[in-house]
Amino acid sequence: MQLKNIGEFELINRIKQKIDLRGKTDASSVVIGIGDDGAVLRSLEGFQVVTTDTMVEDVHFSRLFGSWEDIGWKAMASNLSDIAAMAGKPDYSLVTLGLPGGLEVEAVEKLYDGLLDCVDKFGGAVIGGDIVSSDKVFVTITVFGTTDGSLLRRSNAKVGDSIAVTGSLGGPSAALEVIKLGLEETNGGFSALAETHMRVTPRLSEANVLARKGVLCSMDISDGLKNDLEKLCSASDVSARVFAEEIPVHPLAKHAFPEDFLRFAVAGGEDYELVVTAPSGLLHSIKLEFPNLITIIGRIGPSSQEKVSILDKNGSLVNLTSGGWNHFLS
Amino acid sequence: MQLKNIGEFELINRIKQKIDLRGKTDASSVVIGIGDDGAVLRSLEGFQVVTTDTMVEDVHFSRLFGSWEDIGWKAMASNLSDIAAMAGKPDYSLVTLGLPGGLEVEAVEKLYDGLLDCVDKFGGAVIGGDIVSSDKVFVTITVFGTTDGSLLRRSNAKVGDSIAVTGSLGGPSAALEVIKLGLEETNGGFSALAETHMRVTPRLSEANVLARKGVLCSMDISDGLKNDLEKLCSASDVSARVFAEEIPVHPLAKHAFPEDFLRFAVAGGEDYELVVTAPSGLLHSIKLEFPNLITIIGRIGPSSQEKVSILDKNGSLVNLTSGGWNHFLS
Repeated sequence: MQLKNIGEFELINRIKQKIDLRGKTDASSVVIGIGDDGAVLRSLEGFQVVTTDTMVEDVHFSRLFGSWEDIGWKAMASNLSDIAAMAGKPDYSLVTLGLPGGLEVEAVEKLYDGLLDCVDKFGGAVIGGDIVSSDKVFVTITVFGTTDGSLLRRSNAKVGDSIAVTGSLGGPSAALEVIKLGLEETNGGFSALAETHMRVTPRLSEANVLARKGVLCSMDISDGLKNDLEKLCSASDVSARVFAEEIPVHPLAKHAFPEDFLRFAVAGGEDYELVVTAPSGLLHSIKLEFPNLITIIGRIGPSSQEKVSILDKNGSLVNLTSGGWNHFLS
Repeated sequence: MQLKNIGEFELINRIKQKIDLRGKTDASSVVIGIGDDGAVLRSLEGFQVVTTDTMVEDVHFSRLFGSWEDIGWKAMASNLSDIAAMAGKPDYSLVTLGLPGGLEVEAVEKLYDGLLDCVDKFGGAVIGGDIVSSDKVFVTITVFGTTDGSLLRRSNAKVGDSIAVTGSLGGPSAALEVIKLGLEETNGGFSALAETHMRVTPRLSEANVLARKGVLCSMDISDGLKNDLEKLCSASDVSARVFAEEIPVHPLAKHAFPEDFLRFAVAGGEDYELVVTAPSGLLHSIKLEFPNLITIIGRIGPSSQEKVSILDKNGSLVNLTSGGWNHFLS
């Protein structure tokens, strides 16, 4: 069978089983292994969080849709987002670049400028890496962070929890669509939208507040709300109902696609916001103290065939044609 | 200027300067940063060593010249070799795979089999990673290890030191040439040679012996003896004279290329052996205790224009046309 005919989840599961069979993971120091946003190791100093994330040209980014600085920023931000999803603090990073020989040196320098802008703002000092020749540009970053132990895990959702997200959804993917359609020249509002596509914000401080307040379950939704919420439900053996009306859709996405902005917010991907679950009372008290931190959008229910249901205001299922990213469809 | 017209060393230097300018590396905990085989961080438990290495299809490996198991083995072994170059012990690894959608699932499983065979033998339990879509297969591995503090560094060579290497050189690159030339069917000896191309051995136990005995300077020579020795000389601000007659050339390389085996041993690359420097007396006493561990091949001299000179038995310069790998020439 070819990879494009097997789900990413199934592929990772097969690999995980293979690794588990070998019994090579030392349970005494690995707190969280394969299957979460990052891995967590117990150390004398607390917990070390490590994550790795890769962007490949023409799969995850295009030179047409962002500057080299933008590409560098996003490569680092997407990794820091995984650290955020576990309530970690980024300390160091290793950067591997795959580069074609015909690329301008200046492009690499600009990529690093964007990457280091992100490090300046959020942490993760670059201490090493690798540079290899490759037809297509790719950027693989590994970030090491620490946490005081109040870990956020995607497997901690409980039946009855409410579901909330940080920020607003659908901006980056709607922005990409706008650029692809060439709409940005016809309307001033679209340039701000284009900006949102690449300059994503890792929710590090937000995650730390949520963890400190007692939230235990989180993941980042870079593959789209529905897709990533399905992974969270699988890991926690629960289901989710999301109320479409409550989803905080990015205002510029609404502006650009007044008829079907919901598909961007639900299945567009690239949002780098966090979805969290916790008892309703806890989430409401957090909202009282930090009004702009989260929006409550749904509820966790018992495990069921349909993992994530998006419901309209009448309680009917919203049917979205697109289902997030399948990495091997392209 | 395009990347293919700038040396890898110069490119890394430019990036390093950019990072240094930002002043983002915390000197109190980063013991070794960019420019060695790996980075080293000080922790409460001693030192943490981290390295990352990437193999790209048709740049570093080909499906034609090795099985998927071989490719997995080599991807892990080349990383462990960097850990060895710093006298570390591998603990954990993150594995990122770039995979085309048309690839068979079985290929990925076989790749993991080879990779885990290497982990079984040498350590480095897989605790996470990433899978992304990519036209060409690539494998990026990050390994975390520890060391008790007796670090081997490429910047520790001193004038007057002798130079030694582990194992024998030229086998893997000669093997590749044999396979490319299609010679392997005409001579039984070549199948063993082909085996040496992919199933390389990271010199972890050797490095630990050398570090324990007091050796301070080492790097792995995966880019070729001359090329990597030049990097070592740059980092230590010294030069090197290597006596061609003393180089332990892989016997099968001699057998396959009786006229010009030296180019494989000096500039072929992919050896994954270690080159070390230390006072002559120390290296000789190590040889007495561990006769098969190292071969002394040359001497460190003061910094000079010609960083590495390969000399024949009359003391004349040996002229080798090929100069190791330049990653961006292809």
